[in-house]
Amino acid sequence: MPIVTMTTDFGLQDGFVGVMKGVIWGIAPAAQIVDLSHLVAPQNVAQAARLLRRHTPYFPAGSVHLAVVDPGVGTARRALAARLGEQFYVAPDNGLIDPLLQAAIQAGLAVEVVQLDRPEYWLRSVSHTFHGRDIFAPVAAHLAAGVRLAALGSPAANPQRLALPEPVQIPAGWQAQITGIDVFGNLATNLEAHRLPVGRLVRVVVKGTVIDGLSATYGDQTAGALVALTDSEGFLEVAVVNGSAANLLGARVGDMVEVTWR
Amino acid sequence: MPIVTMTTDFGLQDGFVGVMKGVIWGIAPAAQIVDLSHLVAPQNVAQAARLLRRHTPYFPAGSVHLAVVDPGVGTARRALAARLGEQFYVAPDNGLIDPLLQAAIQAGLAVEVVQLDRPEYWLRSVSHTFHGRDIFAPVAAHLAAGVRLAALGSPAANPQRLALPEPVQIPAGWQAQITGIDVFGNLATNLEAHRLPVGRLVRVVVKGTVIDGLSATYGDQTAGALVALTDSEGFLEVAVVNGSAANLLGARVGDMVEVTWR
Amino acid sequence: MPIVTMTTDFGLQDGFVGVMKGVIWGIAPAAQIVDLSHLVAPQNVAQAARLLRRHTPYFPAGSVHLAVVDPGVGTARRALAARLGEQFYVAPDNGLIDPLLQAAIQAGLAVEVVQLDRPEYWLRSVSHTFHGRDIFAPVAAHLAAGVRLAALGSPAANPQRLALPEPVQIPAGWQAQITGIDVFGNLATNLEAHRLPVGRLVRVVVKGTVIDGLSATYGDQTAGALVALTDSEGFLEVAVVNGSAANLLGARVGDMVEVTWR
Repeated sequence: MPIVTMTTDFGLQDGFVGVMKGVIWGIAPAAQIVDLSHLVAPQNVAQAARLLRRHTPYFPAGSVHLAVVDPGVGTARRALAARLGEQFYVAPDNGLIDPLLQAAIQAGLAVEVVQLDRPEYWLRSVSHTFHGRDIFAPVAAHLAAGVRLAALGSPAANPQRLALPEPVQIPAGWQAQITGIDVFGNLATNLEAHRLPVGRLVRVVVKGTVIDGLSATYGDQTAGALVALTDSEGFLEVAVVNGSAANLLGARVGDMVEVTWR
Repeated sequence: MPIVTMTTDFGLQDGFVGVMKGVIWGIAPAAQIVDLSHLVAPQNVAQAARLLRRHTPYFPAGSVHLAVVDPGVGTARRALAARLGEQFYVAPDNGLIDPLLQAAIQAGLAVEVVQLDRPEYWLRSVSHTFHGRDIFAPVAAHLAAGVRLAALGSPAANPQRLALPEPVQIPAGWQAQITGIDVFGNLATNLEAHRLPVGRLVRVVVKGTVIDGLSATYGDQTAGALVALTDSEGFLEVAVVNGSAANLLGARVGDMVEVTWR
Repeated sequence: MPIVTMTTDFGLQDGFVGVMKGVIWGIAPAAQIVDLSHLVAPQNVAQAARLLRRHTPYFPAGSVHLAVVDPGVGTARRALAARLGEQFYVAPDNGLIDPLLQAAIQAGLAVEVVQLDRPEYWLRSVSHTFHGRDIFAPVAAHLAAGVRLAALGSPAANPQRLALPEPVQIPAGWQAQITGIDVFGNLATNLEAHRLPVGRLVRVVVKGTVIDGLSATYGDQTAGALVALTDSEGFLEVAVVNGSAANLLGARVGDMVEVTWR
């Protein structure tokens, strides 16, 4: 009973996601399908890449992760399927799986990437504007149903890279960036907490506001307090206890977060 | 492992959809359930009918499509179940399945419609305001579990028709209408692209703005360009590359789209 | 094939719900997972408690209901699993399951509550900020996979109570409160309809507007009419036929509804 996850910018109103599930179950009737997110901002490849990187490691070995944020649909951009360690990915070649690919290479995992060029694994009729339904969903379903990766296409060299902002080392610490804002208004950054020294007083400055010291979790402070802490993926996060840091600070994705210590 | 799809205006906040799934799995534990959309505008039968017409043909034979947009709940309006070719439908008798029914008749498919009048296939206690949970979900589940359509009710004559706007032929081409706006702001029309001549320069006018020529897909033009193309169901669509045609043009469902050629 | 329902304030954008499903299926591959709601307002324990109370009785015996609205995540607040009659619940100890617990006790059902203190049933690494993924999801999955409740923790005395507003008896009837507003703008109250006399003219006053008499269902009146009726859970509801009572009246959760008769 293999798992297929779905990550798209298709929203939940128009039935695009549902019809893809119909296609998947037509091919792999026993697949378990999980929605990771369909509320990726339109054409925001970086946001979807971050979601995949963050969540897919928690899935059982053999899971198939289908990601369709695809501004180049219908053009000459390639379509890919990949095996990265024990997980499979199906996505357009626009950088969506690049962070995971780089991490897999760095971790020394088995890596195999193919270009989808075998139409016998697609729907018979392929539109110019909805490859999610016509190519990606059927390919993911065939993978889930046990078709080998190598059967789905020829080896693909040089998948598209994705440039994600990295924190910058400064004399007294780090200049990080806000990489995401969740439903609670918590501000995720790109600074891994293990880069901070132990036993020093850490100061976080965001949008001109200073936070002195790190908290272990939200409930350590009173409601309304602005706190800095380690998020559930190991990155520095800024939050308001029982409130929204995004609203309080007027913060947005891309804003700078300065982290120093003494 | 039959599939049950769900299309409603119940939203995702209030648990209405979840409780229907609990009822379905209580009766048909092996059913695969797909959300087609629960964000149909309240009481918008035409929008739901369009979703069903567009997406349900992609589902495997034997799927059961449960649709509940039901302004007449609790009144004398009938409740229906239908077999149209290889697909099953369960819905109130308010036009929801009419476009599919007419298409099935026109295609010469086997058609069978019953009126739900056998309470032994419903929940024991039926509310006046939530037949989705109390009647439609259990009936869909019984169909998925293998109960024959004819067992669920008596034959139903003259299901309610649904008047959908059709494109109008004009001397130089067609007057079409915007029938839907998706999450990307793309404008779907009711004009099937095969009605346009091959080898002529097609001009599309919408909200006073002119588009000359048809594109094959979004990425054929640069970001921000307004394009006309064939959507993934074969209809003429107006879009902005990596942007929102609805926002750019201030367009709404029902607005006119004039299509001519020379 | 046990059912696991999920009720959270995690939203649908950030992948929090999807990753929890990955964890659940890693442990209980055959579980059927239902989203009850993930659009609970952030930290709104009462709203989630009301959803659980309203919908979970419709699920088959043996279902596991996982609820994570958890302002105290990472603090000393306990985590609970409970058996209430034939249904199981997994949630932080903040009152989420209290209305169901009290109802179960009153109904004389078998009741068993444990405090989650057996880390062998959690993910190996537990974050400070996402116990939904690291503790609650794995525990719910183990329950669904057949682990006995008693194995998951020691007996828990005195679960946290939840104070929900009750209707107040007044000389001529009841003072009720609006407890929820659904996607249609219907106003749910906390007054059970069986507390109203039969054969008397009931008058409902909300936000200064008077409704004389009760309707059986929406469609009994013409579009736009303001009506009072019994909702699908047996409580008094105020609605506008094919419209939104919340918008018409400017009503909010907590507003008073006066119900009298003569």
